[in-house]
Order: sequence, then structure tokens, then C-alpha cells
Amino acid sequence: MKVEKISELTTNRLSVYLRCLNELAAQGAKTVSSDGLAKQFHLNSAQIRKDLAYFGEFGVRGVGYYIGDLQKHLTKILGLDKQHCVGIIGAGRLGTALADYYGFAQSNFTVAALFDADSQKIGQKVSGVEIFDIKNFQETVEKHKIDVAVIAVPAEFAQDVFEQVINSGIKAVMNFAPIPLRVSGDVKIKNVDLTISLESLSYFLAKPNNKNGKNLKPNGAKHRIKK
Amino acid sequence: MKVEKISELTTNRLSVYLRCLNELAAQGAKTVSSDGLAKQFHLNSAQIRKDLAYFGEFGVRGVGYYIGDLQKHLTKILGLDKQHCVGIIGAGRLGTALADYYGFAQSNFTVAALFDADSQKIGQKVSGVEIFDIKNFQETVEKHKIDVAVIAVPAEFAQDVFEQVINSGIKAVMNFAPIPLRVSGDVKIKNVDLTISLESLSYFLAKPNNKNGKNLKPNGAKHRIKK
Repeated sequence: MKVEKISELTTNRLSVYLRCLNELAAQGAKTVSSDGLAKQFHLNSAQIRKDLAYFGEFGVRGVGYYIGDLQKHLTKILGLDKQHCVGIIGAGRLGTALADYYGFAQSNFTVAALFDADSQKIGQKVSGVEIFDIKNFQETVEKHKIDVAVIAVPAEFAQDVFEQVINSGIKAVMNFAPIPLRVSGDVKIKNVDLTISLESLSYFLAKPNNKNGKNLKPNGAKHRIKK
Repeated sequence: MKVEKISELTTNRLSVYLRCLNELAAQGAKTVSSDGLAKQFHLNSAQIRKDLAYFGEFGVRGVGYYIGDLQKHLTKILGLDKQHCVGIIGAGRLGTALADYYGFAQSNFTVAALFDADSQKIGQKVSGVEIFDIKNFQETVEKHKIDVAVIAVPAEFAQDVFEQVINSGIKAVMNFAPIPLRVSGDVKIKNVDLTISLESLSYFLAKPNNKNGKNLKPNGAKHRIKK
């Protein structure tokens, strides 16, 4: 089994399965079949069996999966048995909303620090998380053992902040700034660009074959731009 | 040209190109080549040419693309020449942070209303956006011509809220609740599940071949669960 070859789409699905199992466990269920899991959570049962088989055979014929065992295995595969410390850069509305985001704790991430350049904000606490001066980024990262950075600054500051993050030795970054970052080396970035999601909704609403769609007609002609 | 067959990955890339063009235009540039665009924004030039050729030929040999023209075309293709009205359901930290998210305006979306069930919040304004009673959802949607809903409520309320949204006739939904929603009919959902992104970072940090990775070893043996 080559764990390092698992695609991101697969790990994303494993995350979804784990979320569903957590919900079933909270309801008191002990076992679930791939069909049951698929039906209850609108997933694909063949895909579930395939994804889980990749990491070893977890299921038992006629019984399905033991929820507790499968939770433990997926937690370990996803590295969620280890605590991660998050630093959020940018203590604006988005950064402070994220400081309070319950999904972090759910996934074993603790928000250890917020960072900002605004002297008015430095030293304040938001949802129990202190706002540090971005100038003291490196020492705060070391002190709090921060291993995940969340970039929640405006686009024009994102690349500089990103380089500061990388220089500090952090290897995992979640970027909310709507701009592609120049990456070098062994660093993992997850871009959360809400404008892309919005524009995909806009495209859907504008599509000519959408019953709700308005007037956008596909332009069949080639419009070569002449000088 | 069959616009309706364009994949979501393509429209996502068109969104990125448009963002890059906007930045170039703001810098005063008039033309850009696919190579120049690729280099400056860390994109793939062959992919750019392929994506844009799909919608007609925008480029001119030896000149590249006229930025202003290409902006206009992409804006129209993505349906961004039309204003959309957004209703955000859930006036917690995330919902109120989103009410202020500059990316909405950038993509021609206006946040028209926030909704909540908490009587303490109803009637208040956040970033100029009024919080309405979720009980009056349908009439508020009609009054403000809301065509996009953002679900920013806890997981356990998400499906009920979603059904209310669909019943109101809204066809485009952005869901921040970390739970798969049961969809029926001609509705477009974009799920923004931050825990999946987090867990993908966690997986990266835990990977055995990551220099930074700690102790998680891939378990080569099949662990069949016995009853």
C-alpha cells in the first residue's frame, strides 16, 4: 500500500466518511454497511468500498463496518490523531470568524494565535485567542508550536505574508486571499477562494440551458480580435 | 460551441484568469500573452490557450490578448454582467463575516439580507445588511429578489434551511455547513467545507514521506475486523 500516492480527492472523501461516521456514532449506531452509509449521506457505495479497501479491508461481509474501529482508522490515516496548532494571519472579520470556527476543534486543530499589523488590535483577544504583532511572527510560531497557517489578509499582502510563513518553517497553509501564491519547496497550500465558488454559481444561473437562466446566449461565432 | 458542457474545473479556471486580468488592468496593462499570464500568475500557458479557445479565439498572434476585451468576454461567459442578490442564512460569526466579504461585490453579488431565528438579532444591521426573521424568508426573498442563498448555520439545521431555500425558488446555494445536503431538481450547490481542507493539510503533515511528517506509518497489513 502506498499511502503517499493517495489523491487529494480520495482524502477529501475520507474526510466526508469520517464526518458521517461521527454523526452515526453520536446517534448510537455500532455498525453500518457501505450501502447504508451511501443511502443516509447521499454517497456512492461502490466508491466507499473502493476508497476504504485502499487502506486495508475494514468491512465484514454481512455486518458492514464497525463504526468505532473505522473512525479510529480514518482518524489515523488523516493524521487527525495528532494535535495541530493554527496561526491565523489577519485579524479582520474573516480571521476573527475563523478563530471561532468549530470545525477546527472538530478536526483536532487548535487556534493558538491571531496575527495583525494594526497596533490597535495587538494584545486583544477574540474568542480567547490573542492577537499578536505580525512583526513577532517567527518567535510566536516557535513558542506556540504553530504548524498550520491560515492567511486571511487582503490579496495585495498575501504573497508577502506567505513568504514570511514559509520562512518560519510552516509546511501547511490555508489561503483565503483570492490570489494564486507562488509556491516553492515542500509546502502544502489549500486555497479557499470563495469568489471562484460564487462565479461558478453565477455561471450556472447564466447558463442558456438553465430554466432560470436569463439572456446569455452562447456566442457561436469566433470573435477574433483585430488590431 | 456547447457552453452547457463546460466543466466546473474550466469555469473555475476562467474565474482565476479574470481575477488575474483585473489585476493587470489595474496596473495599466493593455495586452498580455498566454505565456506572460502564465508566468506572472503561476498558471499553465497551454491550458490558458485551450480554455479560452473553447469560447472562441480571443488571442492575436504576436500580440496576445487584449485585456479589456478578454475581461468583458469572461465577465459575460461567467454571467458576471448580471447583478445577483445574496441572502445569508445564519447571522453568527461566519454569516456576519461573509456579509462584509469584499469578494461578493468583486463578483457582482450584493448581500441583500441576513436571516436568523434569534429574536435578539432580528432587525439589527451588520455592515449595512439587515438581519431578518427566518420565518419571513419567502417574502424577504421575493421583496429583495434574492437569487443566491448562503447557508451559514450549524450542521444540524442545514438540511431544513436548505429545503426552505429550495422551496423559495432559489436555484444557487453556497453551503458552509459541514454536511452533505440532499439535493433534488435543478439546483446548484457549492459546498465550502473548511474541515475537508483542514484534514487534507493534516494528511499532508502526517504523510510518511513528508520530511516534516511525524510517526504515522502506513499499515501494510490488512486489518480485517473480526466479530
